[in-house]
Amino acid sequence: MGGVVHTHSTYATAWAARGEEIPCVLTMMADEFGGPVPVGPFAIIGDDSIGRGIVDTLAGSRSPAVLMRNHGPFTVGRDAEAAVKAAVMLEEVARTVHAARQLGEPLPIDPAAVDRLYDRYQNVYGQGSADGADAVNGPATNAEEAHA
Amino acid sequence: MGGVVHTHSTYATAWAARGEEIPCVLTMMADEFGGPVPVGPFAIIGDDSIGRGIVDTLAGSRSPAVLMRNHGPFTVGRDAEAAVKAAVMLEEVARTVHAARQLGEPLPIDPAAVDRLYDRYQNVYGQGSADGADAVNGPATNAEEAHA
Amino acid sequence: MGGVVHTHSTYATAWAARGEEIPCVLTMMADEFGGPVPVGPFAIIGDDSIGRGIVDTLAGSRSPAVLMRNHGPFTVGRDAEAAVKAAVMLEEVARTVHAARQLGEPLPIDPAAVDRLYDRYQNVYGQGSADGADAVNGPATNAEEAHA
Amino acid sequence: MGGVVHTHSTYATAWAARGEEIPCVLTMMADEFGGPVPVGPFAIIGDDSIGRGIVDTLAGSRSPAVLMRNHGPFTVGRDAEAAVKAAVMLEEVARTVHAARQLGEPLPIDPAAVDRLYDRYQNVYGQGSADGADAVNGPATNAEEAHA
Repeated sequence: MGGVVHTHSTYATAWAARGEEIPCVLTMMADEFGGPVPVGPFAIIGDDSIGRGIVDTLAGSRSPAVLMRNHGPFTVGRDAEAAVKAAVMLEEVARTVHAARQLGEPLPIDPAAVDRLYDRYQNVYGQGSADGADAVNGPATNAEEAHA
Repeated sequence: MGGVVHTHSTYATAWAARGEEIPCVLTMMADEFGGPVPVGPFAIIGDDSIGRGIVDTLAGSRSPAVLMRNHGPFTVGRDAEAAVKAAVMLEEVARTVHAARQLGEPLPIDPAAVDRLYDRYQNVYGQGSADGADAVNGPATNAEEAHA
Repeated sequence: MGGVVHTHSTYATAWAARGEEIPCVLTMMADEFGGPVPVGPFAIIGDDSIGRGIVDTLAGSRSPAVLMRNHGPFTVGRDAEAAVKAAVMLEEVARTVHAARQLGEPLPIDPAAVDRLYDRYQNVYGQGSADGADAVNGPATNAEEAHA
Repeated sequence: MGGVVHTHSTYATAWAARGEEIPCVLTMMADEFGGPVPVGPFAIIGDDSIGRGIVDTLAGSRSPAVLMRNHGPFTVGRDAEAAVKAAVMLEEVARTVHAARQLGEPLPIDPAAVDRLYDRYQNVYGQGSADGADAVNGPATNAEEAHA
């Protein structure tokens, strides 16, 4: 783990203010986070309690992101760029699941499907086999996709 | 059908996360989609289940857009440009109907009016009889309009 | 009345989809619209019913804007520029009152205060007596303000 | 107090329309505002009632911002730049707490923690001991942060 990013991005911070994890109800969340985004403890800046809270919370999760209670998101990655990408993806899913929840309950994704999506995206797709094009001519019968 | 576009645009994806079709409560939806935007099945990338889900769902609809469950929208068109336009219009109506629903129930549009709007926009208006100007001097007593 | 503008701006169209007038709960609404923004009838493009609906609805109101049911806003002005300004202000108040209503009921403004605000803004302020500066050094004890 | 800024920023104005103070449920609010953002009285432009309302309301608060009822936010600072910064931070917290409240109740922050955060940010951090970097390589075990 070489990179850490902290933001106060609006929707991730809103989930953090309620101390509520973001449920994994989107295939793009399964791809990138491998499950829900967990919540870490309330911690005040100035000693090592934020750092310990992040490490302890992420230890029990595949997610590269944690929502520190009443504070905001922290994301980690093998380098700063990966951590920034996770922060951007986090805000996108935080906002989309927020919108979904405003008008009812999002449908759950079967845990086996979450595992399969995460494995494919991290291990297969990540090795450069796709072209990243989202707009193609002809039916997308065998689609691959990358997330900006 | 020559173009397919897939996005994770926020509001269309939020409806997809709930597996809920977007009701046709705006005249611009009647113009462009000819009715509600339907929901397709949950399908994992990697085989042809997404492609079949899109085709099967659109077969029963005038809409060029489908909300794949827990995943996001796919739009089709005679070429890539038409599919991109449908994707942009879809997010606009997804967001507007979302906002309408947040504070109550939008009023339904009579199905005969939906048919009349769709027919005029696709068959009459589409043949270039209007000038696309939305800001005009003088009362808009006989308005025509195009959607960007 | 020399200018008419029609948009599908998100929040004004959301109120129109519910067929619900926007209540006058902001001083900037009293300034610009002189009361609530009214709702006009459902009307299909192609004959003069939209034009008549706009004229009839605005006849009973000080507002330069009307929300046509299931369709969207139309604004009028002495010229196109004034109608565009009204359209921009309308979306701003539609969005702000939407946000206010999401978490409770906005407080009403006394009708006599609405009249006083409208009269000052249209008749006194409109004659160029203010400088339009919103950020000033020193306490704003005698503030004047213009709306962009 | 040398600077005063007034805006109609959407979310702060929405809280003002309800006449509801913004609760201090984010660490960045504790840092910058030292507690909730208070509500001032309804006052009409044209005499000194807005100025008096601002001064009276801020007298009982550490907040540099006040939400004038049905009108919008006013912020103060030692100069215009500080007042502008407070206006920008205010809209950010108004929007984030709005989003948090849309899906439930934000968790409160212990008043002693609010005091400690406010004191550190205003008195220690403000003296230039931190570098303002939010993206760092290595774990943020002893994080400092500045708010843009």
